[in-house]
Amino acid sequence: MRREGTWNGGPGTPRRGPADQATVRRSNLALVLRHLREHGARSRSAVAAETGLNKTTVTSLASELLARGLIKETGPQHAGAVGRPGLALTLDGSGVGALGLEVNVDYIAAFATDLAGRVLLDWRISFNAMNSTPERSLDELARAIKQAVDELALLGVRVAGITVAVPGLIDTTTGTVDVAPNLGWYGVPVANVLERADVSRDVPVTIDNDANLAALAEFTSGVAAGTPDLVYLTGEVGIGGGIIAGGRLLGGADGFAGEVGHVPVDPSGDRCGCGRIGCWETKVGLAVLVRMVTPDNAYGTHDGVVRDPEERLAEIEARQAAGDPHVSEAVAEVGRWLGRGAATLVNLFNPRVIVLGGYFARLADQLIPVAQAELERWGVAGSIARCSFVASDFGFCAASRGAAGIVVERVLSDPTTVDVRASVMPSSESTEGRADPVSHRVKPPR
Amino acid sequence: MRREGTWNGGPGTPRRGPADQATVRRSNLALVLRHLREHGARSRSAVAAETGLNKTTVTSLASELLARGLIKETGPQHAGAVGRPGLALTLDGSGVGALGLEVNVDYIAAFATDLAGRVLLDWRISFNAMNSTPERSLDELARAIKQAVDELALLGVRVAGITVAVPGLIDTTTGTVDVAPNLGWYGVPVANVLERADVSRDVPVTIDNDANLAALAEFTSGVAAGTPDLVYLTGEVGIGGGIIAGGRLLGGADGFAGEVGHVPVDPSGDRCGCGRIGCWETKVGLAVLVRMVTPDNAYGTHDGVVRDPEERLAEIEARQAAGDPHVSEAVAEVGRWLGRGAATLVNLFNPRVIVLGGYFARLADQLIPVAQAELERWGVAGSIARCSFVASDFGFCAASRGAAGIVVERVLSDPTTVDVRASVMPSSESTEGRADPVSHRVKPPR
Repeated sequence: MRREGTWNGGPGTPRRGPADQATVRRSNLALVLRHLREHGARSRSAVAAETGLNKTTVTSLASELLARGLIKETGPQHAGAVGRPGLALTLDGSGVGALGLEVNVDYIAAFATDLAGRVLLDWRISFNAMNSTPERSLDELARAIKQAVDELALLGVRVAGITVAVPGLIDTTTGTVDVAPNLGWYGVPVANVLERADVSRDVPVTIDNDANLAALAEFTSGVAAGTPDLVYLTGEVGIGGGIIAGGRLLGGADGFAGEVGHVPVDPSGDRCGCGRIGCWETKVGLAVLVRMVTPDNAYGTHDGVVRDPEERLAEIEARQAAGDPHVSEAVAEVGRWLGRGAATLVNLFNPRVIVLGGYFARLADQLIPVAQAELERWGVAGSIARCSFVASDFGFCAASRGAAGIVVERVLSDPTTVDVRASVMPSSESTEGRADPVSHRVKPPR
Repeated sequence: MRREGTWNGGPGTPRRGPADQATVRRSNLALVLRHLREHGARSRSAVAAETGLNKTTVTSLASELLARGLIKETGPQHAGAVGRPGLALTLDGSGVGALGLEVNVDYIAAFATDLAGRVLLDWRISFNAMNSTPERSLDELARAIKQAVDELALLGVRVAGITVAVPGLIDTTTGTVDVAPNLGWYGVPVANVLERADVSRDVPVTIDNDANLAALAEFTSGVAAGTPDLVYLTGEVGIGGGIIAGGRLLGGADGFAGEVGHVPVDPSGDRCGCGRIGCWETKVGLAVLVRMVTPDNAYGTHDGVVRDPEERLAEIEARQAAGDPHVSEAVAEVGRWLGRGAATLVNLFNPRVIVLGGYFARLADQLIPVAQAELERWGVAGSIARCSFVASDFGFCAASRGAAGIVVERVLSDPTTVDVRASVMPSSESTEGRADPVSHRVKPPR
């Protein structure tokens, strides 16, 4: 089992093992932190009464959480209090950042929030994995990390952890990408990427599958939030799947579950990047659509211009607006295969919703009617098991958003992962009145 | 969500709701019963000390469990006891039977255990669903139930519950089979089958998917017992799948997950019983093998002789032994498609083991080497995610065994489902010295 407990995707999984002092302390720190996050500002006495911890313990835990910059004190609580009012505790974490990145075929995305979930960064840079060696790609990733960390520092935020999303099979215990066919990565150690970045190497880095992280983001806060059985499909050059089943991320024995892109759908089809014939992504991946619509401009050629998926989609839409008849037919063909492949997912997972991410979301108006009809034709349970396609509203940042979310969850589960030290920020109040730090920009290719 | 809590497949799921007196009582009855089952005979004091319940409560709970015939008193416990030794309590349930049945295309199977898991019944009768209306099939099922209940009564066992396994999509809340293409059942209410059987209608009857029940039986006590990520494949005329993921049965939004038989694997293939083209079961179902090997003797013809799958396999093996060259090639062809279809399951579920049930198990020596090689060729994670085929040793009774197991679990979770009344048996000791009641017989066709 490579993914261990984190892949059960929730706080419900009890941690087993000897309950030594340090473990109990960590667990109580997490209890108080989550309590404040869920219930809002309240006095130490209220926390003690509501959690069942005794007041002395709460006082000690609060001191530690204050020192780690995870909570702060606010004005006195008056409600019903008798005697000297105590200062209320509230989740702070505005100086603690969670950084998620995604490396994909034609972009690197960065997304960061503070501990309270406020979005601090959201940008994407163009990148050409197909014309790059893993070495050069890791250098690019390191540069993106350095840039994100610097931007967060300017906001007074220090980074509590980094998670990198990669479209491939990941050994999460060692932080190695075993296979990412579309990136051309085989056995690439990503977790030590900080050795290339000019930033502190004390920040914990984890690597995870892009579709799984995106599925968690959708389940937590996306268009199908809270739907216990859903499938998320990444619409990129490659097609990945993240499966939420019974409210938990489906990991499988090695964390490799949900490799939907390489489900064989057409034994007489084209050869896939993975070397096999007729994989689903040879029918619905972005590279196929681009090839059908603009045969002169295939992926992975040395044309000197790296295009971001948004730019490619803008080009496709422009051709369609100009009356190019190939575009609508190509999109419909993708929609048909989307529905046919999804029928397999519905037969096997019986989800209530299939969330379309990436480029699928951008073309959802055209894709969904075709795909839905095909799904009902091919799914054995089609007439009974109600399953709808919906478009994600996370654009191309679902995976990096999920990656940042994992970092937040890790801090909430173990507040001791954030060091006790002076915050980068002079005062935890100093972000107030500042302009919204989110930058929804896409950087030009370099 | 049609399947509710039972589909999480274990005691780990907390029951929510108002903790009224009756609920607390039921929960405590279950606690004591499971404690005795897991830890063996012990005094009321020991049960109180070990469960944290107070002694008066344990005494009251024990009285009720004794009245319901679920536990009994045994000779005095001496170990370390001071003063008057109390009688020890131990799981009885030898007078309480759990009955599982399976209706399939060419047989009805029955399997029963007592509450302690002792096998009481295990038989199969030939049956021809293809030449039968649902009405007549339900009459056959009712006759099989009557026969099983009568046989159990002769053993002094009253039936605490019945679960019927059916190869199709089941609405478990109403006990209706929505779709079972190979039986020709659409919207067939099975839960009220007892109205046709000349037995007490007070016995609770539930209906479930055959592959899910078989997967639970394998996970609980089969060749891959305890493997948290496994797929069970029924090898019958139809191919069903039961998925254990992260130690839980995968249900999906409607309990329809695991419909592997109708995954499209060959767009240019044959028409399936479900009406679609190229479903996996058109490549690996028993009917296909029979057609390839004995084209003169297809399934579902009015040849007047109903054959059990064992008989058909015996005929195939006899032809192979006689040197018929078609047999080995046909089996290898099934093996290849078994591996190819399994590659999709491995890509999507990343199981450690695929348990082959039904006829696959009988031909495992020939099928597995071919299927394993094909799996490694087609699974994207094939070289990394270790997954092995293994043959079930439950023969054709895996589903009925799982069905009986569900009844046992239900009684253990809510002992009040067993009535307080005089047992059918004059004495709970009277089975001792009796011959083993298990009959591994297959009845002749009628």
